[in-house]
Amino acid sequence: MTKQSANIGVIGLAVMGSNLARNLASREGNVVAVYNRSPERTRQLIAEHGSEGDFVPSETIEEFVASLQPPRTAIIMVQAGKGTDAVIDQLAGLFEPGDIIVDGGNADFHDTIRREKAISAKGLNFVGAGISGGEEGALNGPSIMPGGSAEAYKTLGPILASIAAVAEGEPCVTHVGTDGAGHFVKMIHNGIEYADMQLIAEAFDLLRTVGGHEPAQIAEVFQAWNTGDLESYLIEITAEVLKQVDADTGKPFVDVVLDQAGQKGTGVWTVQNALDLGVPVGGIAAAVFARSVSSHPEQRRAVQRTAAARPTPVSPGENFEDAVRAALYASKVVAYAQGFDAIIAAAKEYNWDIDKGAVAKIWRAGCIIRAQFLNRIVEAYERNPDLETLLEDEYFARAVADGVDAWRRIVSVAALSGVPVPGFSAALSYYDSLSVERLPAALIQGQRDFFGAHTYKRIDKDGVFHTMWGAGRNEVRQDGH
Amino acid sequence: MTKQSANIGVIGLAVMGSNLARNLASREGNVVAVYNRSPERTRQLIAEHGSEGDFVPSETIEEFVASLQPPRTAIIMVQAGKGTDAVIDQLAGLFEPGDIIVDGGNADFHDTIRREKAISAKGLNFVGAGISGGEEGALNGPSIMPGGSAEAYKTLGPILASIAAVAEGEPCVTHVGTDGAGHFVKMIHNGIEYADMQLIAEAFDLLRTVGGHEPAQIAEVFQAWNTGDLESYLIEITAEVLKQVDADTGKPFVDVVLDQAGQKGTGVWTVQNALDLGVPVGGIAAAVFARSVSSHPEQRRAVQRTAAARPTPVSPGENFEDAVRAALYASKVVAYAQGFDAIIAAAKEYNWDIDKGAVAKIWRAGCIIRAQFLNRIVEAYERNPDLETLLEDEYFARAVADGVDAWRRIVSVAALSGVPVPGFSAALSYYDSLSVERLPAALIQGQRDFFGAHTYKRIDKDGVFHTMWGAGRNEVRQDGH
Repeated sequence: MTKQSANIGVIGLAVMGSNLARNLASREGNVVAVYNRSPERTRQLIAEHGSEGDFVPSETIEEFVASLQPPRTAIIMVQAGKGTDAVIDQLAGLFEPGDIIVDGGNADFHDTIRREKAISAKGLNFVGAGISGGEEGALNGPSIMPGGSAEAYKTLGPILASIAAVAEGEPCVTHVGTDGAGHFVKMIHNGIEYADMQLIAEAFDLLRTVGGHEPAQIAEVFQAWNTGDLESYLIEITAEVLKQVDADTGKPFVDVVLDQAGQKGTGVWTVQNALDLGVPVGGIAAAVFARSVSSHPEQRRAVQRTAAARPTPVSPGENFEDAVRAALYASKVVAYAQGFDAIIAAAKEYNWDIDKGAVAKIWRAGCIIRAQFLNRIVEAYERNPDLETLLEDEYFARAVADGVDAWRRIVSVAALSGVPVPGFSAALSYYDSLSVERLPAALIQGQRDFFGAHTYKRIDKDGVFHTMWGAGRNEVRQDGH
Repeated sequence: MTKQSANIGVIGLAVMGSNLARNLASREGNVVAVYNRSPERTRQLIAEHGSEGDFVPSETIEEFVASLQPPRTAIIMVQAGKGTDAVIDQLAGLFEPGDIIVDGGNADFHDTIRREKAISAKGLNFVGAGISGGEEGALNGPSIMPGGSAEAYKTLGPILASIAAVAEGEPCVTHVGTDGAGHFVKMIHNGIEYADMQLIAEAFDLLRTVGGHEPAQIAEVFQAWNTGDLESYLIEITAEVLKQVDADTGKPFVDVVLDQAGQKGTGVWTVQNALDLGVPVGGIAAAVFARSVSSHPEQRRAVQRTAAARPTPVSPGENFEDAVRAALYASKVVAYAQGFDAIIAAAKEYNWDIDKGAVAKIWRAGCIIRAQFLNRIVEAYERNPDLETLLEDEYFARAVADGVDAWRRIVSVAALSGVPVPGFSAALSYYDSLSVERLPAALIQGQRDFFGAHTYKRIDKDGVFHTMWGAGRNEVRQDGH
């Protein structure tokens, strides 16, 4: 074992950590220190993949630290939460000023902010880095969203660039912003992923229930869509899943899978944090709630016993598939617009200098929501970095306008046919809420003033007003003018 | 000033606190100690309302405590947050074992749980009590939702019963459950209130934009609805607000109010906590997000500049008002079902023994969502206290079934006409998601298994499965059987 020979280390060698270490070792110039609490995993990694590159295995954390060249740089790939805190404490006790601790797990960005504060107070660098792309991405090229200090990124950036996915010649990694910015953006990535998947599921349901197509036919529809504006990894794998036939029963795979969707928390976090930030993310929330509804079988059975007879699906009408595609695309634009709104609001709240176009760029490959579509977002922010919403950009405005009639028709058909489309309809309501000149929120302000003297503003003059609802109903100005 | 003469005290004499103290003093048998940090307010209360009942004013908190008979019982009516903590600390230093500290503010129930733990460790009682009904309710009879110990309720209950609103002969107060149960239920009350108001706003928008009615005509529609199933305080005051004519301009009041709805946080809390509990509350969330969208004028202006031309509203068709009423009623049922689901989940999570029927009963008067409708919920839980969802109850199932065709038609008409109906459509999607036999969540499980090896279950056999998507596409059982 060479002392101080490794330029990067990985702690935690479960599948994600092992794959990331192998990815690092496979790149020219990297020497990768590896360590796992139970040494069996380290030995297994070296036995199975030691020949793939330069590894420096250690069986104690002291050895591991000793094998790293300064500034020591270690990526922690253990369970989020207490496990991560324990490893951070160990490293912080052994590292020296200027060294860099990287948390590559799916941490809550609030934890990342707290950890960065504590670690930087000791003169060390702490970087929370979102890593997307699952096991396969970790091995062959993930999309990486590091936060932390610009100083740490000088050392870390080139190492991460060496293993990241590449989109149009550019590595899918950028210094997102300080402290928790990377983990925040990774969380939003996952929230958008929930929305993307739900919208695809609704499109499938419509093509089947209203369109009358079998899964294998719908797979072909998705394959065709994957050559156009919707080209993306999720559309591609949807076609693969729908093509799959169950070996046991000969039925379509999708028909033998239990229809209760699981979730691991980042979708929930996205909605909760957007609520904290005052950002309406109804399209993303609809996706999170849809998974949750599906996973309440006792409620579903109870309602199915007592509910009204299911409606007969209405006729799909002409160009039904095209209309579904248009609705899917417009709804997807809304989900991304909401996700970027949350990023913009968080950047303001937490003083992060986030380049929205750069975020869109690093999502173009390696991660689950990778898509051609992201180039449109890059271009939109190039045209105007201060867009109030992606929906006002000329490309997206035209794209939605082109599809809006079909979008309306599809939401209407779904409502009449009993196909649940929480994502399509939340997105359409959001678009209509932004597009319409007057909202009935004025009535809500009137109600609030009536029962709680919450006051209101007027459209025709400045000031804060209250109507004396209980006594004469005269209007009184409340702001002392 | 009589030493130890007061059976109840109020700390914090802003409007809510003053009104609550006056309400208490107006009831036979109560002697009310009152204290405010700045003594001017105390003096003002006594000067203006001292003759309304037995008040014992104090200018120091020591005097205030000395004026209470044991077990000393004091209701804190100050700003939620740090102000409340400061007063609790003061009282805890002066009170004796068995005394009762009541927080009557809109506290976060997590804070209430924390405070109850700290205070009860000192041998004192701490009760977090939600109080609804605004200023007018505080004075004339609110709906009160106390948590805390059963022991404290023995002393506190009769005092609260003396001032609560009365519905069908019963005071609108019950011991909701231990520690934070009262504040949790108050939070859900507010979440339901958001939904109720949003649904009414959508009905108004449809009657105006599609139905072509003026606000004064719509006021008459709401007045008529207020004699049927929808009879409620919010419907009643909606008619009053819509009747109102602006004195300045001669226009309908609702047309001169700025259409940006404010919010104070309990709606956001409801959604965030429901997400923590895994309860889908899409109907309530839609209302919270709708207010948020309305309050982003810069985004609205930006989209209005670039969006597609607004659609021409479709013809309302026959019995349009009745159809809107049916959609409103069905959506309202969904909002309440979701709110009660959250209560049930929280009761399980926090070990609260909550009587759902009793909660519905105390909402029948005094609070903002007061309505005849709540008797239907009382009856539903009388028929079956273990309902999986209110939607399976025979009354609600029939009510929704009777209106479901109209509901579908209204969501369809809104989508085609460009009227944003996030509440109506989220509620319909929720109902359809529960009613339909198969959900496309199976496809989402397939996608998750494809990109993340998240595994899935099957409909036809036990076990946890993964398909080797990248290698042969065979299915492998993952749970060791």
